[in-house]
Amino acid sequence: MRDLATAPEHFGLNTATLRQWNLEQIIDACASRGIGAIAPWHEDVERMGVRAVRRMLDDAGLALCGYCRGGFFPALTAESRNQVLNRNRHILDVARELDAPCVALVAGGLPGVHDGVAPSRDIDDARNQVRDGIAQLLKHATEIGMPLAIEPLHPMYAADRACINTLAHALDICEELDPDGDGALGVAVDCYHVWWDPDLEQQIARAGRKRLMGFHVCDWLVPTRDMLNDRGMMGDGIIDIPKIRGWVERTGFDGFVEVEIFSRDNWWKRDGEEVLDVCMDRFKTVV
Amino acid sequence: MRDLATAPEHFGLNTATLRQWNLEQIIDACASRGIGAIAPWHEDVERMGVRAVRRMLDDAGLALCGYCRGGFFPALTAESRNQVLNRNRHILDVARELDAPCVALVAGGLPGVHDGVAPSRDIDDARNQVRDGIAQLLKHATEIGMPLAIEPLHPMYAADRACINTLAHALDICEELDPDGDGALGVAVDCYHVWWDPDLEQQIARAGRKRLMGFHVCDWLVPTRDMLNDRGMMGDGIIDIPKIRGWVERTGFDGFVEVEIFSRDNWWKRDGEEVLDVCMDRFKTVV
Repeated sequence: MRDLATAPEHFGLNTATLRQWNLEQIIDACASRGIGAIAPWHEDVERMGVRAVRRMLDDAGLALCGYCRGGFFPALTAESRNQVLNRNRHILDVARELDAPCVALVAGGLPGVHDGVAPSRDIDDARNQVRDGIAQLLKHATEIGMPLAIEPLHPMYAADRACINTLAHALDICEELDPDGDGALGVAVDCYHVWWDPDLEQQIARAGRKRLMGFHVCDWLVPTRDMLNDRGMMGDGIIDIPKIRGWVERTGFDGFVEVEIFSRDNWWKRDGEEVLDVCMDRFKTVV
Repeated sequence: MRDLATAPEHFGLNTATLRQWNLEQIIDACASRGIGAIAPWHEDVERMGVRAVRRMLDDAGLALCGYCRGGFFPALTAESRNQVLNRNRHILDVARELDAPCVALVAGGLPGVHDGVAPSRDIDDARNQVRDGIAQLLKHATEIGMPLAIEPLHPMYAADRACINTLAHALDICEELDPDGDGALGVAVDCYHVWWDPDLEQQIARAGRKRLMGFHVCDWLVPTRDMLNDRGMMGDGIIDIPKIRGWVERTGFDGFVEVEIFSRDNWWKRDGEEVLDVCMDRFKTVV
């Protein structure tokens, strides 16, 4: 296992961790600390303009460890599904311009769940739509050379965010759509979403180096007061992060360890410099 | 599949659904509606006295569809584990006195998680403690003829309530500890906890009639505002309950359909008669 204590260059920052700052502030702060990479969010990139972001990254000497995010495939109508697909293709193009190593895919939940109507109760249909959506997007992804990383989300998000909830399920889709496994389609493993899975060690090994495109860390707090925005700083919760990192690195994974913390009532309220200090400290000591 | 529209006798009420009433009120109201059975909570039974409860049930002609609940095995010390085991044995004895068909087991979470100390991060150890605890309890259960039903809980409870989170995992334990499968050890399937599992149909079939000791229903609301106490009335959420009931009954299951709704801000605040009316109506129409 890599020694992170002396290697801040392996640290990747998902910019959602610092919602109190804009992208420019984040890039500056990361560069000045020797942080290796960031994973920005598409909405922030669009707001700032792709070229401006590209220039800032170059000036700072900062790489991307991922790009957030594509997906949200299930929809009630064929027209909506087409719109989703077009938006996803655009996101891939932008990620390409920024030299992202991959685009994270969050599957999406039940059709209609965010449309103000009674959502579908057919999770099998939702899952089929996700598979079909990824299959279609994969053509564009392959054409432009932008890998797709399916990120299974915790089962508590199955209805409204992602109906792909285990690494096993994500890998089933990878193997069905991309049997060669030559780097076009893989997975992102976020400790927060998968730590509970009794099959995790085995599935990480199954993913292997070629499918394993991202590794994200934060912690599970007890109690968790909000299902989306009460994620913990590494070390403040109950996830055995080093154990999972060991499994990940045993595959040969040598990419960035991406810190992604959604924390409305704690870390998002603090000073950004303090948050980065704590992230770096915990990265070195408990990840 | 059974036609529930004309069969209130298949309805079982988990008494936590009516926290606004005491056990006596619940028994009276269920009896007067032709409801077949209740699943009471051990704390309520102790409060009222086992013999008094036994008498009330007999007078009302009401059966039990389950008994809540044993389990919570993981602990930090051998002494605590012994206390847990003794308490579980006592719960089984009481369930026996009340002619419960089985005792539901909620595994428990990480050792120390409710002790005001930093909890363990070793979920494998917690799971081993659960297996060992069930193995020990099974001796007493077999002696007195009280079946144990392991209830996998949703993965969002893995840290603090139950580290057995899939039906597959629960069945692995059953097959390890009770390979004959002669009715001493089985599972309870609660739609709320397992609806998201892509492996659910297959695992219900694997459980089969002998292992499938309980079937619980409520609904998953979108959004879910509280991880414990914001469960939905059947029909108000996104679980395809009839589909799951179909899988359950295909095994030959002909037991009670147990309604269990934890709802602090909605159903627990309403008049008990209204809640029972709605439960019965939804039982007949959407379950």
